[in-house]
Amino acid sequence: MKNPPSLDQLISALKVLPGVGPKSAQRMAFHLLQRDKAGAEKLARALDRALSNLMHCQRCNTFSETPLCNLCADTERRQDQLCVVEMPADLLVLEQAQCFEGLYFVLMGRISPMDGIGPHDVNLDKLMDRVLDGVVQEVVIATNFTAEGEVTAHMIAELFKDRGIKVTRIARGMPVGGELEYVDLGTLAQAVYERRGLNK
Amino acid sequence: MKNPPSLDQLISALKVLPGVGPKSAQRMAFHLLQRDKAGAEKLARALDRALSNLMHCQRCNTFSETPLCNLCADTERRQDQLCVVEMPADLLVLEQAQCFEGLYFVLMGRISPMDGIGPHDVNLDKLMDRVLDGVVQEVVIATNFTAEGEVTAHMIAELFKDRGIKVTRIARGMPVGGELEYVDLGTLAQAVYERRGLNK
Repeated sequence: MKNPPSLDQLISALKVLPGVGPKSAQRMAFHLLQRDKAGAEKLARALDRALSNLMHCQRCNTFSETPLCNLCADTERRQDQLCVVEMPADLLVLEQAQCFEGLYFVLMGRISPMDGIGPHDVNLDKLMDRVLDGVVQEVVIATNFTAEGEVTAHMIAELFKDRGIKVTRIARGMPVGGELEYVDLGTLAQAVYERRGLNK
Repeated sequence: MKNPPSLDQLISALKVLPGVGPKSAQRMAFHLLQRDKAGAEKLARALDRALSNLMHCQRCNTFSETPLCNLCADTERRQDQLCVVEMPADLLVLEQAQCFEGLYFVLMGRISPMDGIGPHDVNLDKLMDRVLDGVVQEVVIATNFTAEGEVTAHMIAELFKDRGIKVTRIARGMPVGGELEYVDLGTLAQAVYERRGLNK
């Protein structure tokens, strides 16, 4: 006694999603088929549409439906500053914070030797071409402050050593509104190590 | 600044999956588009195939690619015993346990007033027709021993009261190989309450 083949195939296909094992995949398949066929149809169509419409922006590498994404096509942005982030979601939060007027480069990942993700997989060669276009003066590295994000930041900094490009890293420290008593000790220590002079 | 529409649509479509919120949906979309386009394609095709091929078995209500599922079409099975389970996965484990030779009825859910799932949503009318076919003598209720499963079992038992049908419930008690010291107290208590006579 087994499931019908098309049910087993759906369960197995759902396991391509990150964090979804056999049990969750089964639960998802039953849910879609029993309670939300319209949702299943919507998902199939959205997958097709995303696969056929989305490409990487030629300049910043983020997902885009056009060769050049809206942001890169915006001539009002500062062209001499380039902020490097891991994922499109990071770009979106930086834009929401309204703290940066330049352009972006999206690595689409982070270097993670443990997961077999090396420099080539995060498009460092494409970044190199982008930065050395003669216009970019400063690369602002805004990868995450995780082990992988730090390794990636280090590799990028090495890449532009002695190339006449200013390379900066966004600051670590206390969160705005943060109280010393409640912040984690690693962050507190880093805020002390990287203290800034106020009376220069 | 926003994501391209087809990316946002994919993220939103992934949220139809149970247990998937905005953050997971975003992570899944990036994973599929960046690291596993073949998997995304496979998932879209599996959804289409499952939606078009799968129906409910006319007799037992489980998922099937034919009007009558293989198990219901098997004339070697005992026709007078009908085991009622919540989901196809429950049917599969019972078959693996090789402890039941009759036929099944799959409710495709459990009664759960909290989630707005009433008797009609778990196909009790279809079960009624199935049981009162003149052949079935015993209904073995094998819903889960959760609150919802117990409510469902109770409703089914009520349904066949005074109908000349024997209704049984699979036993609760100690697991095979279980030690009293390590079993949960609720199970242990139930094993005592439902103790069986050995010297009839």
